[in-house]
Amino acid sequence: MVSYEEKELLAERLVTRNLYKLKQLSALLQPEELAEVINTSKEIDFTKVFQVLDAEKAVKTFEHLDFDIQVELLQSFQVDQLSSTLNAISPDDRTALFEQLPPATLQKYLSLLSDEERKTANQLLQYPEESIGRLMTPDFISVKEDWTVQQVLDHIRNFGKDSETLNVIYVTDNKGFLLDDIKVRDFLLAPLQQKVSELMDHQYASLNAKDDQESAIEVFKQTDRVALPVTDFNGLLLGIITIDDVVDVIEEEDTEDIQKFGGTEALEDAYLKVSFREMVSKRAGWLIILFLGEMLTASAMGYFTNELNRAVILALFIPLIISSGGNSGSQAATLIIRAMALGELTIEQWWLVMRRELLSGLVLGSILGIIGFLRIAAWTLFTDMYGPHWMMIAFTVSFSLVGVVIFGTLSGSMLPLLLRRLGVDPAISSAPFIATLVDVTGLVIYFSLAYFFLKGLLL
Amino acid sequence: MVSYEEKELLAERLVTRNLYKLKQLSALLQPEELAEVINTSKEIDFTKVFQVLDAEKAVKTFEHLDFDIQVELLQSFQVDQLSSTLNAISPDDRTALFEQLPPATLQKYLSLLSDEERKTANQLLQYPEESIGRLMTPDFISVKEDWTVQQVLDHIRNFGKDSETLNVIYVTDNKGFLLDDIKVRDFLLAPLQQKVSELMDHQYASLNAKDDQESAIEVFKQTDRVALPVTDFNGLLLGIITIDDVVDVIEEEDTEDIQKFGGTEALEDAYLKVSFREMVSKRAGWLIILFLGEMLTASAMGYFTNELNRAVILALFIPLIISSGGNSGSQAATLIIRAMALGELTIEQWWLVMRRELLSGLVLGSILGIIGFLRIAAWTLFTDMYGPHWMMIAFTVSFSLVGVVIFGTLSGSMLPLLLRRLGVDPAISSAPFIATLVDVTGLVIYFSLAYFFLKGLLL
Repeated sequence: MVSYEEKELLAERLVTRNLYKLKQLSALLQPEELAEVINTSKEIDFTKVFQVLDAEKAVKTFEHLDFDIQVELLQSFQVDQLSSTLNAISPDDRTALFEQLPPATLQKYLSLLSDEERKTANQLLQYPEESIGRLMTPDFISVKEDWTVQQVLDHIRNFGKDSETLNVIYVTDNKGFLLDDIKVRDFLLAPLQQKVSELMDHQYASLNAKDDQESAIEVFKQTDRVALPVTDFNGLLLGIITIDDVVDVIEEEDTEDIQKFGGTEALEDAYLKVSFREMVSKRAGWLIILFLGEMLTASAMGYFTNELNRAVILALFIPLIISSGGNSGSQAATLIIRAMALGELTIEQWWLVMRRELLSGLVLGSILGIIGFLRIAAWTLFTDMYGPHWMMIAFTVSFSLVGVVIFGTLSGSMLPLLLRRLGVDPAISSAPFIATLVDVTGLVIYFSLAYFFLKGLLL
Repeated sequence: MVSYEEKELLAERLVTRNLYKLKQLSALLQPEELAEVINTSKEIDFTKVFQVLDAEKAVKTFEHLDFDIQVELLQSFQVDQLSSTLNAISPDDRTALFEQLPPATLQKYLSLLSDEERKTANQLLQYPEESIGRLMTPDFISVKEDWTVQQVLDHIRNFGKDSETLNVIYVTDNKGFLLDDIKVRDFLLAPLQQKVSELMDHQYASLNAKDDQESAIEVFKQTDRVALPVTDFNGLLLGIITIDDVVDVIEEEDTEDIQKFGGTEALEDAYLKVSFREMVSKRAGWLIILFLGEMLTASAMGYFTNELNRAVILALFIPLIISSGGNSGSQAATLIIRAMALGELTIEQWWLVMRRELLSGLVLGSILGIIGFLRIAAWTLFTDMYGPHWMMIAFTVSFSLVGVVIFGTLSGSMLPLLLRRLGVDPAISSAPFIATLVDVTGLVIYFSLAYFFLKGLLL
């Protein structure tokens, strides 16, 4: 394993024009590590590195490179190297790369594939984006029910080389329909003369090629397989997906949720890699929508100009009150959105959530209300800024806090559930979104209570 | 694979007192599926279900149950069943369960283990919480350099039954120091007479038992292994961890980050499972801190009471301006925190980030500023609410927006980097935290610009 410091050192030493030295250094690293070093260092001339790698290591390294480096590297290749690389990389990694290419380049690259590989590539590209089909590879080992364990092991030894994994072996009938999946451990532990059929339990989990990638996460978590078979609607075995691809999917999905939750559209690539233009446009959309929403606060306050004119003191607490609503709402929304994403919570349970959040809002709002009251009371001991009616002002602020926090927790928790119910991604009910929603209502609550407590005194 | 609807149906049918029917139904399900059904339905009498399961299936099912159900189930067992279950479950799952027990119960359960299992359990519990040691299992297959492939396969067939995985085989020297890890595929594809030493490349990734679990994620992503060896500081092979455990770690870490980012401490368990008391206390802490911080806005505005008295119109735009700063800051913070968590960004790159965010803030702030200006101009056409100096008011609002948004993007992006530099988890610079920070500054920017544009006119 290469540590961070070693990587820095190696990256520095890989910046050399001496091909012999490059070859020596590259030999020290596993393909995945070499790819990692190239991905993180901008100074390495990776086209040079690829000149010194042998064909197999080059392909393995290539598969682990970032897309932008893959694209650049392919452009630097001569036609024969380009063609052999494209044919050699595994079908699932190739699909992921092809997704990123402009149509003209894609057509050119497809034409360089062998007939068989082109057929595979075209088939995989037909599945919808973000579908399981796009993650799948058709390289797997399948065996028949009436074989012996010995026959299976021989078959693996002869034909297993290109299979993406040998950890799980698939049993199919003569037409290719999936009958069972068997872990290789069962073959390794079984007597050599035992029949495959005796190892079968006909209980297997499979994925549908057209389903969303997110659904694969749940299935991998429930079954303890490192690979799952993918079938079409009728049960015909099309390919497999391996757990390492799913690890990437989890991180991507979580990143998307987190970014949406922060009030921005999800970025397509790493923060420092997306263009400035893309980043600003992904952020501007929501920022403008929130801004337009927040304009309603100016309108709402427009209605209370008379009250404000008579008691400017009321203005002092506006940020405090609306932000408390926003904060409590943002807490509730995070907890609910994440619980739904993890499958811990379904929309049918909205009533449980509502009861919980109503009570939480009451308790949390009361805590803040009491602190707020004490603060105003304490200041009154030393200054005269709140005037003779300080206690009524303190009541207004305290009760507003209770009301606003309850409204915050309720909207923060119910809105994601409502959005899910409407078929919209609940992650768009972001912290800023909830805050904006609560701000307008918070002002109305505050001024209504002010009217109630201070009418005839200040108002 | 059991779909959601089927699961509902099975769960309903498992609510029966007829033991024979229970036995039939349980036989239809894989252990993982049965556990899933029990975990999600509250009505099933799981103690009954466990009466009808055979020993092996009971253990496998037990390993996939939620902790609270595991604990309850163990309490219902007679001593002999309790003892056999505790001895049979795999060491890593047992450690995870033991972590949840009160000390008295833990001591009792430890005393029920065989000498060997107790030694293992005690060793695993000595590793710090959240460390790799806590995830590891000492059940693995190790072979020697001078063996042939045939000997390895025979060894697996004889001794592999209890190994957590057979997908990766470990080569150790006579003292148990790790020499290499070899995927089982290499043995399956190699001629039977080949020596283990010929398959070795002496390049392997290993984890340190005392390291944080988070570090395992990175290593699994870089290497394409489904299991990784865990060693002590000297390289002595202690155990292995498998990728399915890491999938759980990723989701836990992401949940923690997301919850912190929403301005609450991370919950210990699922939203509906934590006690009301725990949930409120996890939320109250931050809410109070933010509230105290936000009180500074009241103090800040206290300094501007004279200005407000003379131009109450200024109060109308306060929520709009401070929330725009908070929103843009929350966007920036999310992007930076996530990029750091994924290793896409290091603190050394702060200068790149700062340049990017300064520019983003300028562009985004200008967009909002222009919209704000147009809004005030448009309203002036129809009402007289902004008076004769509407244009100066509009300038104040517009320039404040630019200033506040730039301040928001800068603090949102720099604060997480600063926290990381200080060794604090950057995820605590949550959306609400940034918003509160920006609110106070936003007010100062706004009133300073108001003074500049409106002095001698309204002020």
